[in-house]
Amino acid sequence: MSLVRVHNFSVSLDGYGTGEGQSLEAPFGHAGDRLHRWFFHTRTFRAMLGQQGGDTGVDDAVARTWADGIGAEIMGRNKFGPQRGPWQDHEWNGWWGPNPPFHTPVFIMTHHPRPSVEMAGGTTFHFVDGSPQEVLARAREAAGGLDVRIGGGPTTVRAFLTADLIDHLHVAVVPILLGRGERLWDGQEGLDERFHAESVTTPSGVTHLTFTRPQPQQD
Amino acid sequence: MSLVRVHNFSVSLDGYGTGEGQSLEAPFGHAGDRLHRWFFHTRTFRAMLGQQGGDTGVDDAVARTWADGIGAEIMGRNKFGPQRGPWQDHEWNGWWGPNPPFHTPVFIMTHHPRPSVEMAGGTTFHFVDGSPQEVLARAREAAGGLDVRIGGGPTTVRAFLTADLIDHLHVAVVPILLGRGERLWDGQEGLDERFHAESVTTPSGVTHLTFTRPQPQQD
Repeated sequence: MSLVRVHNFSVSLDGYGTGEGQSLEAPFGHAGDRLHRWFFHTRTFRAMLGQQGGDTGVDDAVARTWADGIGAEIMGRNKFGPQRGPWQDHEWNGWWGPNPPFHTPVFIMTHHPRPSVEMAGGTTFHFVDGSPQEVLARAREAAGGLDVRIGGGPTTVRAFLTADLIDHLHVAVVPILLGRGERLWDGQEGLDERFHAESVTTPSGVTHLTFTRPQPQQD
Repeated sequence: MSLVRVHNFSVSLDGYGTGEGQSLEAPFGHAGDRLHRWFFHTRTFRAMLGQQGGDTGVDDAVARTWADGIGAEIMGRNKFGPQRGPWQDHEWNGWWGPNPPFHTPVFIMTHHPRPSVEMAGGTTFHFVDGSPQEVLARAREAAGGLDVRIGGGPTTVRAFLTADLIDHLHVAVVPILLGRGERLWDGQEGLDERFHAESVTTPSGVTHLTFTRPQPQQD
């Protein structure tokens, strides 16, 4: 059974997955890098950048599960870049340079489709309009039996949570108060009842929260 | 130096310190007892009820610091009871029976003052109108050099946080999504910068978060 998974999704104590005022210089708006400092020091993150080193503690152990068994990613347009409305800049292919760290098909949800772009390293960006169910069906087909990752941002994750399409949700709660931005948890009353919850705090100060949907045991 | 402290304040993942629809039967509205289950099993809580037993793990260790060195409590009117507006029922003296667990003066913030009430066991309820600063000044005077506890609810704690009057904040984050009610963290952008933060998760699934204001060391 192909699962739908969210990994390494950081939120502030007040639930913001990104700050206000995204721009080319500030992908997370006024949050700056404060939501992701715990992640930057991990070996997993450094490997995503093609770098050596990084810590290998529990933050890294949790973070590194993000890629195993993933056959496609779905992301919202605001994760892909700061442009809004019809595409002005067709040269923009994300924040990640010529060899993005996904290495799978990536479906970008937008009301303004554009042609697919094949990047180095196995990443192909597809621009698709549709409901979470429709986009997931396309991503599942592209994933060839592997799992599908919902990459963010908060609005996209929330849309898939609301549609009850997510099987595994890893959220890193960072003890900061952002006060404004996009909130993950809005409208999710009772979400916990569909999942098994676990929490673990690491010395970086982050609480790793996992919500996993009970799965049938297989022999 | 007399400190201002918050203890055992439970919030849901989405930041609600109480649910919607408080009533005599449901002091925390639709949240029911879900925010406080971690607390009910502690020896500290059972002792507050005059009962024996209860667990003595980390939940209890954190919970039991609530009373040490406290000389007065301040609470919002909604923590005291479900009545709104002018007092209709002067017989209402809180949810806690004839011997409330405070054993100090308790200042209840309300725009509708009424005469003070002396309960058994050293608790006296005073009904006061004023700003957080004004009510704190009265509570400090009554506390005789000891610390003052801000007892809740969320609106009251938030008012004291906004006025930067709190030195120690213990919040228990419970992995449930309430979706509606009164939120603790609204309007608290940058709060974390004034405090030293620590987090620890316990097997009950709760994350105990403490924000402590750096204090001058004394010999």
